Order: sequence, then structure tokens, then C-alpha cells
Amino acid sequence: MVQRLSAAEPDFAERFDALLSMKREVSEDVDQAVAAILADVRKRGDEALIDYSHRFDRVDLGILGIQVTAEEIAAARAECDRTALDALTLARDRIEAHHAKQLPRDETYVDPIGVELGSRWTAVDSVGLYVPGGTASYPSSVLMNAVPAKVAGVKRLAMVVPAPGGEISPLVLAAAELAGVDEVFRVGGAQAVAALAFGTETIRPVAKIVGPGNAYVAAAKRRVFGTVGIDMIAGPSEVLVIADGTANPDWIAADLLAQAEHDASAQSILITDDAALGDAVAEAVERQLTTLPRKDIASASWRDYGAIIVVEDIRAAVPLSDRIAPEHLEIVTEDPDALSREIRHAGAIFIGGHTPEAIGDYVGGSNHVLPTARTARFASGLGVLDFVKRTSILRCGPEQLRAIGPAAIALGEAEGLHAHARSVAIRMNPGA
Amino acid sequence: MVQRLSAAEPDFAERFDALLSMKREVSEDVDQAVAAILADVRKRGDEALIDYSHRFDRVDLGILGIQVTAEEIAAARAECDRTALDALTLARDRIEAHHAKQLPRDETYVDPIGVELGSRWTAVDSVGLYVPGGTASYPSSVLMNAVPAKVAGVKRLAMVVPAPGGEISPLVLAAAELAGVDEVFRVGGAQAVAALAFGTETIRPVAKIVGPGNAYVAAAKRRVFGTVGIDMIAGPSEVLVIADGTANPDWIAADLLAQAEHDASAQSILITDDAALGDAVAEAVERQLTTLPRKDIASASWRDYGAIIVVEDIRAAVPLSDRIAPEHLEIVTEDPDALSREIRHAGAIFIGGHTPEAIGDYVGGSNHVLPTARTARFASGLGVLDFVKRTSILRCGPEQLRAIGPAAIALGEAEGLHAHARSVAIRMNPGA
Repeated sequence: MVQRLSAAEPDFAERFDALLSMKREVSEDVDQAVAAILADVRKRGDEALIDYSHRFDRVDLGILGIQVTAEEIAAARAECDRTALDALTLARDRIEAHHAKQLPRDETYVDPIGVELGSRWTAVDSVGLYVPGGTASYPSSVLMNAVPAKVAGVKRLAMVVPAPGGEISPLVLAAAELAGVDEVFRVGGAQAVAALAFGTETIRPVAKIVGPGNAYVAAAKRRVFGTVGIDMIAGPSEVLVIADGTANPDWIAADLLAQAEHDASAQSILITDDAALGDAVAEAVERQLTTLPRKDIASASWRDYGAIIVVEDIRAAVPLSDRIAPEHLEIVTEDPDALSREIRHAGAIFIGGHTPEAIGDYVGGSNHVLPTARTARFASGLGVLDFVKRTSILRCGPEQLRAIGPAAIALGEAEGLHAHARSVAIRMNPGA
Repeated sequence: MVQRLSAAEPDFAERFDALLSMKREVSEDVDQAVAAILADVRKRGDEALIDYSHRFDRVDLGILGIQVTAEEIAAARAECDRTALDALTLARDRIEAHHAKQLPRDETYVDPIGVELGSRWTAVDSVGLYVPGGTASYPSSVLMNAVPAKVAGVKRLAMVVPAPGGEISPLVLAAAELAGVDEVFRVGGAQAVAALAFGTETIRPVAKIVGPGNAYVAAAKRRVFGTVGIDMIAGPSEVLVIADGTANPDWIAADLLAQAEHDASAQSILITDDAALGDAVAEAVERQLTTLPRKDIASASWRDYGAIIVVEDIRAAVPLSDRIAPEHLEIVTEDPDALSREIRHAGAIFIGGHTPEAIGDYVGGSNHVLPTARTARFASGLGVLDFVKRTSILRCGPEQLRAIGPAAIALGEAEGLHAHARSVAIRMNPGA
């Protein structure tokens, strides 16, 4: 049975806190193993990649080759179902159109005393994209990571994906091609992260690495951070649905289960002001579970981490939601905009009954790589800004230096940095 | 003697590579010590802070109190030199005015098929600012970190600064007050990072931690990343000056030394197409060094990491600069704009002879927290965007769901996520 909480109960605050602090991930201590793999790839390059792939993925890259060839990609595309390819193409086009609006603009202005200040944005030159293997190898995630990079203007996008037993999902390769990925390598794990960060004979190093992975991949990304840029470390996925009596309980149940089927550690929560809706949703979940192919995973997630919370007034859902800082937030109420405006911390908000989260996962156009595990308190979803960087530009003439130079000299001296002070003074008083 | 390189020499490529890969930081392995401190503060809270401060800073916070009081801050301000306070105020105002232009705008639009897509920016609720103690305790850095946070709308800005022997720089406290810092705590090291990340009885946890620190602070930030957001890990500072024969060698020498005086591991490089300018700068550096209070530091930096590189054509400086990806780049040539436009990787560019880097360090208005150690290849300087996060908003109606829902269903099925597919199908075909 799923957890039921009611804001009217005296122990609500404690139970809500417990729900918040629930640890959904078993933290594996793989850090030492990862450190050894990184050092080894750095030292032995391709040879180490071949050894680890043999050991972890049961594949001989000495024979098969580390890089996936254009012919293999074409063959994979030919193998794909036409409907799925068309759907991927629609998704690609919509993601591209939305992310094109995120391109930041360069700006230059002259301030009241004549100092010129500018910001110029440039793309990261080369990016590595990690794609998990096996059942978590999602073509939609390839699009969500690769398309914003290409929109940003990244010239070289190198994808790594493990090939357990030699297999890579054909649709993943087709998505890479559709998204404009430039190179694909059949390597996974910490060894793939090492190759992207340090380079090997076959894989040239990149400047930034993005994409989700298991505990080894996460630990490796954390370790190479600084040598290269990394995106956030993704945790298990979650959805919060805020719904009132106007919502259709079957639809809400379907959305909660769509989240739960990802992973036994996924989390689905409903907050409602209508206890009857809560009951109806709980019942619909049980009913829909019976016919779900991934029912074992979904029912474990729902049983262990799911929750239905009843509040007196739907507006009380807002502060609760902000404490959860959900990755995905659906608002299915009579006036969803009013509630949405009050929300401060959420990766993405899905408004109204006809916007199931799955639309955003695939074809809405916005990104499905979103901050998990309460990190929406400080982080944003993936976007074009993750693949560009800003250079600030400053220009003074003699007049401006006369105006603000004395303050710089004063601060340099106050900080004991006399060469700083002198570098300004020497220009103001050429005799000094 | 400083290193001299010439692009005309046959071994130039190797020597330039060696300059690039020069390791300027001794990497201390403090990770295990830091892990223990984090765990201890998490467990024992204030008591652990008091113990570590006693041990590392020789100060009894049990008597002095962990939080710096408003009275202490007022007393510190009264102690400060008026000229320095006025300079700080000017700097604060200019930093504020510039960063106000970085505030991102919310955007909502309806696409051709009627899907509404939006981006909404909100400030991080609470931010912790680490400020080093001792001689590296810079009031200008307090402004550079705190002002953008306040411009972004951060409600609670908590500063931590170690108080070795009980002492905190009065100008640092005055800068905190000027910048609108809400709380100041006299704690430093990994224990301060732990307090900000996990909270103690006195220090409430924050959502994000920024600011530079030593190896312990850097290791602690790396470890709490995920629980809280962090900014980049700062390395030793560096400047690259591109200058031609029109530059004043004394001014260039002063700028190279302003960088070198920071730290023995700072790096100052000149690239010029005029060998005579190179000679004159080398000579001016030696001359200016003799009268510099921090000459021991500056001469060690210049001797160990400084370089003068002569190229045939000044345009050859651009690809070399992009490989260095300098934190600070000064362009002092006849037509600096032409070169500046070609540069892709730099934290900040200072244009022309009257814009010494020290102006940007203090009063230019742009931020002096910039990506070091070649990270300008993928990272930007600190700014308002570091203190806000984006929530994406999506809304479909029945018509839009009919238009793009089938593609979502196809992708859900192709990925084996049937509950995803069903959450869309159930709305399109209410009988399903």
C-alpha cells in the first residue's frame, strides 16, 4: 500500500520531513575503483579501453574497433521501425526549435563615464556525451543532450555508449545521427569518461562531458571535474502532481506510473485537496498496474517511495512542493496558472490535464534532462547555456582611468597588492 | 631569468606544449581528512565547529560566538580608512550596475501548433559565501561574490570567514555590509563548508556555496556538490598580454607583475610580434621588481611560470591564446578590436593600453571571479546566472495532444516505457 499523509494529522510535519529525507539511492563506494580506472586509461590509452570493455562489456574492441563506423550507423538506421524514426525526427525538430530561443545574445554598452563593458558568448569547442547501455539506453536522451549542444554551435560532439555483448540499440545510433553527433565510440563506464577527459590514441579529449550514467560514471565525472566541465550528477527521477477534484483520477494514476516505471527508486507523489480524488487515484494505480509490462519496477517504486498527501486548501500544496523542489511538477487544477506562478523550485512544470509529463519527456520541445533529488533549489534543466561560455570585455580610455583609477589604487593598497596599484598609477602619472 | 620562446624556433611546438601542461599547483591529498571533518560537523554541529576552530584557527568560538554580531561589524567599519571605504562603495555601485544587466528575462511563447512553452527564472533562496582568512582575505572578492547574488534576488546570503587568532579583516566585514550580506560566521576550512551544506544549531543550511579557498575548502566543495550547488574550483590566477610595438613596455611589465604578486604559482605571459618590446618588458620587469613589497612572491612566479613569446605576425597570437584559454587577456596593439573578435576562449578581455587588469579586479564593474587553469574552454566568470535557476513550463490542450501525442506514444513504446505511452494514450482515447 502506498503512503497516505494528511496535513490535518498532528504528525504531518514529521512524516513530510521523513518523506523528504528518504534516501532513494544506495550509494556505492566505487571511488577508489574509479580512481584506478582513470589513472590506467590516462596511462595506457586505447589498450586500457580494450581491456576494460572486455572485462565489463564482454566485447573485443581490438576486433570490433573502438569507433562505430558510418556504415554501422547507416545499417542501424535501416533496421529501425519507420514510425519510431518519424517520431524521433519530430522530437528532434521540436527540441531544436525550442532551444534555438535559448541562444544568449552578445551585449556591449558604454556606461555614463565612458567605460565600455561587454559580454560575448562562444560555444564550447568539443563535448562528450555519455549514453548508458542496456535497457537505460534511451534515444530520446541522446536528442535531449545532443541537440542543445549543436544549437549552441559545438563543433565536435563525441558520444560514448557501452556495447554489452557488442550490442548498441539501433535507435540510439539513429538518434545520434539525427542529432548531428560527430563521432560515436562503443565504450562505457568510468573508462569512457577517462577517455573523453584525457584522450587516447583513438578518442581526442573534449572540453566538457554531459549525460547520465551509473555510480561509476558519476564518480568519474566528479573526479575529472576541473580538467573538463561536467553537467549535473543525475539521481533517480521523480514527479509531483498537484491536483484538485476537477482532475481525472485515471489520467493522474497513469502519470504517477509513468514515473514509477523508470526505476524502483523513482518517486511519484500526489498532493490534493480532495480526499476522494486521492482514493480514486490510489485505486486507479492498482488497477493500471496489473496490465503494465514493467509492473514489478513500478509497483516497487510506488510502494516504497510513492505518497498521496491530502491538504485542506490546494494553495497549501505550493510550500510543500517548494520543499520537495520536484524534477517534474504537474498542476492539474481548476486554475493551474495561479498555483504555477507561486512555485519557486521545480525543474519543469506541466500545466493542465492535457500535458502529461511524457509529452515533455519526448516531444514537447523543452528538455527532459532536469534537476533531480531536490537540486531544483539551485540547478536548472539542461539547455543551450550549458554549451556556451561568456567572455567579459572591458575598455577604458585615459579619461575613464582618471575617473575610476584612484579607487583601484586605493583598493590595491588596502589589500597589500602594490603591483596592482602601480599598474594603474603608472598610466595615470607617466612620470611615476 | 624568464622563459623566452620564439615561434620561429624548431622546438617551439614542444616548448609551448610544455608551458601549457606545466603543473602550477601542488595537489595535496586532503580528501580523507576532509571526509572526516564533513562527517563530524554533520554529526556534532556547532560543537565540531568550535573544536576545529580551536585547533586550526587558535580561536575559542565557545567564548567569542560563532556568528559575528552587527555591533562587531559596525565597529570594524568605523576602524576602516575612509578612502578605502569610498573606493569599496564605488566598486560596489559599479559591480551592481553591471550585473543588473545580466538578469535573465522570463519568456513564454506559443508555437505554431499551439503548444505553450515558457522559461521562468527564480533566485536561489539561500547562498553561502566562503571568504579565505589571513592575507588572502580580499574585500574586493567579497563584493564580487556577494553583489551578483543580491542582484539575482538571493534572500539569505551567509558568509563564512576564518578568524585566525580571533582576527577578521575590518575591510572584509565592511565589504560584507556594503554588499548586503545577511549573516557572517567566523568559521573557515572544510568545517565551514560542512556547516553551510548540512547546517548546525547556529548556521542554517544553504542551497549553494560559492567563493575561493584552499585545498581543504576545494575538496569539501567537491564532496558536498549535489547536496548543494557549488561554483567552479578556482586555481592559481593568470594573465596573458598580447602586445605589439605600439605598447608601453613599462605598463606591460607592471601588469605582468600585478599578476605575479598574487601567488608564487600565478602565471604571467606576454606574446608579442616585436622582439624589442619583449626585451624592453623583460628589462622593465626586473627594474620594477626591485621596489615591489611582494617581490619575493612576484619574482618566484615570474621566474618559474612567466614567459615571453615572440611570434612573426601578431595574428599568430590568437590560436596560441585560445590554447592557453587565459583567465585574463590584455590586448595592447594598434587594432585590439580586430584581435579580440577572433578570440574564443578567455575569462575576460581587457582592451587597449588604458585598461590594466587591475581596473577589472576592482572597479570596472565586471566580475573578477573568472575561470582559471584553462577552464575558460568551458566555463564563464561568476555572474547573476550563477544565482538563479530556470523552470521550464509546458502546456498542451486536447488539440496539441492529438498533434504530437502519437509521436510520444511511439517513442515510449520504442523505449519499452509503456506507462509513458499509456499516460498519453489514455487522454487521446478516453475509452482506452
